[in-house]
Amino acid sequence: MILLLYAHPHPRRSVANRALLDGVRDLDGVEVHALYDHYPDFAIDVAAERERLASARLVVWQAPLYWYSVPALLKLWFEVVLTRGYAYGPGGSALEGKHCLWVTSTGADPDAYTDAGRHAHTFGAFEPQIRQTARFCGMRWLEPLVVHGAHRVPPDVLHAAAQTYRQRLEFWRREHG
Amino acid sequence: MILLLYAHPHPRRSVANRALLDGVRDLDGVEVHALYDHYPDFAIDVAAERERLASARLVVWQAPLYWYSVPALLKLWFEVVLTRGYAYGPGGSALEGKHCLWVTSTGADPDAYTDAGRHAHTFGAFEPQIRQTARFCGMRWLEPLVVHGAHRVPPDVLHAAAQTYRQRLEFWRREHG
Repeated sequence: MILLLYAHPHPRRSVANRALLDGVRDLDGVEVHALYDHYPDFAIDVAAERERLASARLVVWQAPLYWYSVPALLKLWFEVVLTRGYAYGPGGSALEGKHCLWVTSTGADPDAYTDAGRHAHTFGAFEPQIRQTARFCGMRWLEPLVVHGAHRVPPDVLHAAAQTYRQRLEFWRREHG
Repeated sequence: MILLLYAHPHPRRSVANRALLDGVRDLDGVEVHALYDHYPDFAIDVAAERERLASARLVVWQAPLYWYSVPALLKLWFEVVLTRGYAYGPGGSALEGKHCLWVTSTGADPDAYTDAGRHAHTFGAFEPQIRQTARFCGMRWLEPLVVHGAHRVPPDVLHAAAQTYRQRLEFWRREHG
């Protein structure tokens, strides 16, 4: 089973993330779980989250990039769900061996993510925080799927990204599902 | 004025951050603002936060390192306070020229933060997200103050770190305050 945690603070304003999500939500074996819909007050039900995780073999973290990271509710999810004794440390092997895919969109053109660009770093400079969170829990990190320029990406480019997303999940399911 | 935003989700359990805070809280011109005390429900009062920021010339983000970043409430603070038109973009110059200091503690020994260590990266690999958040808002980034091994750091080491913190704020105040 693929558990797709969707963390968009303003889902109705979303263009890129919505198109990406629409590209995969009807796939068999994909459970979409929209965190901001469930927890608008940031009161995450940890037991329910862990129950969902139990049957997942691939965990997708899909969210726009906010200040070079995941939105605050997904960050809080890391903090309250992925605790010692559950996700790491003695007895903490609940996520071991599961796969993890980060799907994200940025507001800027790709060339903003260069050393000389607006964001002064390559996109890869912001990956360690998220990747190492997954790896510290024993998850296998897949190559992230990143869509740049979410606010003005042409429809055909967005459509292609959604197709890539769909193919990656289908491929994963064939190999591992 | 120095605005010290303190973001500890469990302040009563804190050892290192509390000692650091106690080292500076009585300094003239330091306003300590404990985010988790004010906003246990994550409902940040954006106008009040901006009022505090208006008179600050140095903004300190003090928080334990949670999943290689700041705790979720401080991340949310970035998202709702540092918005376009206020902190960046057209008309967004409210923080321009202010200085920014990140003070943080980790739970692991320093050698966990090496390529071969438990966290598989140097500490510096996790700095771009926070540093670039400040810089994108036009703030001047000061060298972060990091205390490793917060759970078992010997009292004298912790005391020395608190003194260093105090000296850095005093020095800043002499130069810029």
